[in-house]
Amino acid sequence: MKKAVVLISGGVDSTTTLALTRSQGFACYAMSFDYGQNHQVELESARRIAKTYGAVEHRIIKLGLGELGGSALTDTSIAVPDHSGDGKIPVTYVPARNTVFLSIALGWAEILNANDIFIGASSVDYSGYPDCRPEFFKAFQQLANLATKTGVEGNSIQIHAPLLHLSKAVTIQKGIELGVDYSLTFSCYRPNVAGHACGNCDSCTIRKKGFAEAGVPDPTRYG
Amino acid sequence: MKKAVVLISGGVDSTTTLALTRSQGFACYAMSFDYGQNHQVELESARRIAKTYGAVEHRIIKLGLGELGGSALTDTSIAVPDHSGDGKIPVTYVPARNTVFLSIALGWAEILNANDIFIGASSVDYSGYPDCRPEFFKAFQQLANLATKTGVEGNSIQIHAPLLHLSKAVTIQKGIELGVDYSLTFSCYRPNVAGHACGNCDSCTIRKKGFAEAGVPDPTRYG
Repeated sequence: MKKAVVLISGGVDSTTTLALTRSQGFACYAMSFDYGQNHQVELESARRIAKTYGAVEHRIIKLGLGELGGSALTDTSIAVPDHSGDGKIPVTYVPARNTVFLSIALGWAEILNANDIFIGASSVDYSGYPDCRPEFFKAFQQLANLATKTGVEGNSIQIHAPLLHLSKAVTIQKGIELGVDYSLTFSCYRPNVAGHACGNCDSCTIRKKGFAEAGVPDPTRYG
Repeated sequence: MKKAVVLISGGVDSTTTLALTRSQGFACYAMSFDYGQNHQVELESARRIAKTYGAVEHRIIKLGLGELGGSALTDTSIAVPDHSGDGKIPVTYVPARNTVFLSIALGWAEILNANDIFIGASSVDYSGYPDCRPEFFKAFQQLANLATKTGVEGNSIQIHAPLLHLSKAVTIQKGIELGVDYSLTFSCYRPNVAGHACGNCDSCTIRKKGFAEAGVPDPTRYG
C-alpha cells in the first residue's frame, strides 16, 4: 500500500479527506497540531476520527504557534466574531498556519517514504484565509520538491487538496457516500464550557449551510 | 526602525546575519527552535547572541519535530558521522527543517508587521542540505506572499539569505568587520557531555576550515 500523510483537524473537510484517501487505497498517516488553539476540543475529535477511519498512526505535534498571538483562535484577548460574510480575511486567521502544517507534514512524509500529502482545504465555502487558495497550494507543491532530499532525488512529493474546488454541501454528500459519520466531527471556533458549538462563528455558519444545502441533518449539538 | 525577523541557531552564519541585519538599521526579532535537537547547547549560545547583538525580542519556539525521527540530529539511534565530503546529503539532514523554520518566522513576521525575514543559510560551505540552496529560497519567497494576509494585501514579505553565496571564510571576515565575537557561537552537531565541540562532524569541519581560510583564530574549545 502506498503511504499518505493526511492532515486532520477534527472537522468536516479533513475527515472527508481522510475517508477519501483511505478509499483510494492509501495507508494513511494522520497528523494534527496542538498549536495553542483555544478550541482544543477539536483534537479529541481528531483522535476519534483517526481511529475510526483506520489511520496507521496519528501524531499530534506540539507547536508553540499560539504564543506568538495575532489570531482570535489562539489569543483569548481577541474575540471570535460571528460570521459576517463581508469578504475580508477575518481575525480568526492564524498567520502562516497552513504553511507551517504542510511543512511539518512534508518532513514526516520524507521520513515515512510517503510521496503523497493530503489536506482538506476548500476555497469555495471557507473563511477567506489566503492559505486555502489554489495558488497557495501550487506554490507549496513547487517548494516541496526543492526543499527535500526526496525531491532532489527525483521522487516527487505530491500535495493533494481534493476538496479545493468543492462546496461544503458536495463535500458532505461525498462523505456520506463514503460512510463518514459526521457526528464525530467538530467545527466550532468558540465552543462553550460544555464543549458545544456556538452556531454563529464562521466555521459553524459554513458548516450549517453545508449540511442544509446537502439535505443532510447536521448532528452537531449547538449552544 | 523597520522590523526584521532573524532566525538564529547559535552558529557562525546566523550570528553574522543578526549582526549584519542590525547594522542595516533593522529592529531585530530573533527566533530559534527547540525542535528536539540533541545539541540543545546551541540554544544557550542563541540566547547569549540575541542579547549581545541587541535583539528586541528572542523567541525560542517549541516544536515537536524531533519526535518524528529520521535525522541524526534528533534521533539518538542514528550516529552523527565524521565529515565525509562525498557530496551526498548526510544523515544529519532534518527533513523539511528550513521550510518549517521559515514558515513559523513568516507567521511571526505577519504578526509583528515585519516585511523582512533573514536566514543565515549558505550554499557554498555547507552540509549539502537541499533547503539551503538558492532555488529553495526563491520558491519560499514566492510562497510567502501567496500564503499570507500581508502578501494578499500587497505588502511583500522578503526572504533574505545574505550569506547564500559566501564562503564561510568570507562570512567570518564580514563578521569580524562587524565586531562579532565568535566565542559566543557554537556549531557542533555532537558535543560531548562537557558541551565541547567534537571537531570532526560536518559542522565542526566546515567551521574550522572557514576560520583557517579567513586567517582568524577559532575560539572553539574542541574535544
